[in-house]
Amino acid sequence: MNDDAVRTEIDTDARIGTVTLSRPGQRNPLSTSAMRQVTAALREFATNESVRVVVITADGPVFSAGHDLSEMIDRTLDDERAVFDVCTEMMNTVQQIPQPVIAAVQGPAIAAGCQLAASCDLVVAASTAVFGTPGVRIGLFCSTPMVALSRSVGRKRAMQMLLTGETVDAHTAADWGLVNLVVEPDQLDTQTRTLAARISDASPLTLQIGKQAFYRQIDVPQDEAYKLMSETMAANAVTCDAQEGMSAFLAKRKPVWQGK
Amino acid sequence: MNDDAVRTEIDTDARIGTVTLSRPGQRNPLSTSAMRQVTAALREFATNESVRVVVITADGPVFSAGHDLSEMIDRTLDDERAVFDVCTEMMNTVQQIPQPVIAAVQGPAIAAGCQLAASCDLVVAASTAVFGTPGVRIGLFCSTPMVALSRSVGRKRAMQMLLTGETVDAHTAADWGLVNLVVEPDQLDTQTRTLAARISDASPLTLQIGKQAFYRQIDVPQDEAYKLMSETMAANAVTCDAQEGMSAFLAKRKPVWQGK
Amino acid sequence: MNDDAVRTEIDTDARIGTVTLSRPGQRNPLSTSAMRQVTAALREFATNESVRVVVITADGPVFSAGHDLSEMIDRTLDDERAVFDVCTEMMNTVQQIPQPVIAAVQGPAIAAGCQLAASCDLVVAASTAVFGTPGVRIGLFCSTPMVALSRSVGRKRAMQMLLTGETVDAHTAADWGLVNLVVEPDQLDTQTRTLAARISDASPLTLQIGKQAFYRQIDVPQDEAYKLMSETMAANAVTCDAQEGMSAFLAKRKPVWQGK
Repeated sequence: MNDDAVRTEIDTDARIGTVTLSRPGQRNPLSTSAMRQVTAALREFATNESVRVVVITADGPVFSAGHDLSEMIDRTLDDERAVFDVCTEMMNTVQQIPQPVIAAVQGPAIAAGCQLAASCDLVVAASTAVFGTPGVRIGLFCSTPMVALSRSVGRKRAMQMLLTGETVDAHTAADWGLVNLVVEPDQLDTQTRTLAARISDASPLTLQIGKQAFYRQIDVPQDEAYKLMSETMAANAVTCDAQEGMSAFLAKRKPVWQGK
Repeated sequence: MNDDAVRTEIDTDARIGTVTLSRPGQRNPLSTSAMRQVTAALREFATNESVRVVVITADGPVFSAGHDLSEMIDRTLDDERAVFDVCTEMMNTVQQIPQPVIAAVQGPAIAAGCQLAASCDLVVAASTAVFGTPGVRIGLFCSTPMVALSRSVGRKRAMQMLLTGETVDAHTAADWGLVNLVVEPDQLDTQTRTLAARISDASPLTLQIGKQAFYRQIDVPQDEAYKLMSETMAANAVTCDAQEGMSAFLAKRKPVWQGK
Repeated sequence: MNDDAVRTEIDTDARIGTVTLSRPGQRNPLSTSAMRQVTAALREFATNESVRVVVITADGPVFSAGHDLSEMIDRTLDDERAVFDVCTEMMNTVQQIPQPVIAAVQGPAIAAGCQLAASCDLVVAASTAVFGTPGVRIGLFCSTPMVALSRSVGRKRAMQMLLTGETVDAHTAADWGLVNLVVEPDQLDTQTRTLAARISDASPLTLQIGKQAFYRQIDVPQDEAYKLMSETMAANAVTCDAQEGMSAFLAKRKPVWQGK
């Protein structure tokens, strides 16, 4: 019954592809099967021209409680490695696909669930969402989640979450830079779609160039970042969509994107 | 008439050199000519001993709307490269000159204008200032501005500004660490000068050592940063100004800097 | 009388090892002797199984005023180097020992004193604490403190503290991510112990793996961080304590740590 760990849907009008974690009864565990399904869904969206923005969300009261612990008990080191390789592949895929990815977090995002939210380009959280990395309490420090977490909230706050295992609420997460927008629970879907709509008007080529550029420049020294980005931006400027966009802006008309 | 894209002024009493973007009618575009003038002005200030702090500000209601789009339409890839090379040189020069540079932002700082503010060592903003990177809307993602922006506000907030193209107000920018101080519009000049005065009492040699050290250490791993900074600080400690400063502090008298 | 620059104490019930700067009359200077004593105390705690959390605090109204300036006047370059080498060794030791280290800051933490607090894994501050890097005013830029400071509060805020030399209060430091928790002065000890207690229930092996992993991954590009952390987490997962922790969690019983 692995097939129902994840549900996908494309709203062609809104140009949104949605991946929904769909095992609420088990608190949406990120089993290797579920993670592979998320990765596969993202890759399918990646090549679908009618998908301009991707949303990752979940059914039920919990966003995701993290890994499926039953896959990690009484296993060999190679078995454990396989779990984290599949996990890292999913997190990297979120950042590698050309479309912006928004996490719409309705409830607790825990351990690898917190990491999944933190790996998305943008995060909208219901006020009922909480974020935590409690692995320390069960003997398994959240070392892979901390890669995404510490890059979003900084050193001291990441350490606090990692060492105490305590959750932070949505407003605190927003204050710390992990969440972009906190909304009432019944507004999560609407507000996420509103945010997606603001993005999906842009040229998909430009979004692709920009998202890829962001992750290329964020982790290198500034001098190198400027060398990469000057070339990226010059190459972007000669694309049809940039020429159209600039011309339309100067002429005060709406641009028509060609995606090239 | 390129000569009037930028105005420079030195207040020898306050020891402040000011660069003012002075084409308010065109929303202070950062044309290649204007950027070259800013770079040249900064380099002239760099070697002027009567300039202890540099301020970058602008005339009119807009700080800067960013690049001059007319320079980027119907151009070759090499032409585009030239624009971004000139731009990056200006941004790097802000951080390379020995004196601290304060941006005094009175209005919208957009795209390369936002980048210019973010590249300054410190930013004072009037409550009328807003910051934005809306290139995505005209097909030209703000990939070079994001180098400075993402290093000031962090990943999720930078992504939000870059993907939506929406501006953030001065108070939000301060909350996010892009702006140091928000003031009433009629207090921008006074408060910027007060901040500059607090800095300009220091030894110019010490400020030079410190500013250069800051950018050397910020982008390298912590171990390497400590190696560099231990040597920097030891070399600083044996300068005349450090010896004078420490002695004056212990004797509770005012130090007299020699600049060596 | 160097021996009394630092006092150490182990509370075996709470499993907390405390290092107290104990020259309040001299504002707890970080002389080379004092720094060597802190380093030695931390290393002794490192191998003591009854110490699960380390607290660094100070006697009197001041946490630490920073280096002992008398050690830095009329010295050779090699003498100065020795001071900063001893200092860096102390700061690195804070992050190298296996146990989490909490700074409990009751008053001004200045220059190297600010650096010491910023180097701890977590910081609890009394509302009477302030943080500052005023070296610029005495001709000696706080170049080594800025390594820890700029990695905690970001570029613009670090620059503001470094260039103006002005202190920030505890609430501002918390807002900027330098401090985890601000408490009333008479609650500093209690609240620090409460925080320590939440951490010391965890497996000491897990805490050691996690703390070491944190500093290994924070300063490398994300791709490399994931490679390191996937392996770290897989290796962690097959330890006895992780197996016990996961099993106990699933069985809803309290885990019994073996420390292996």
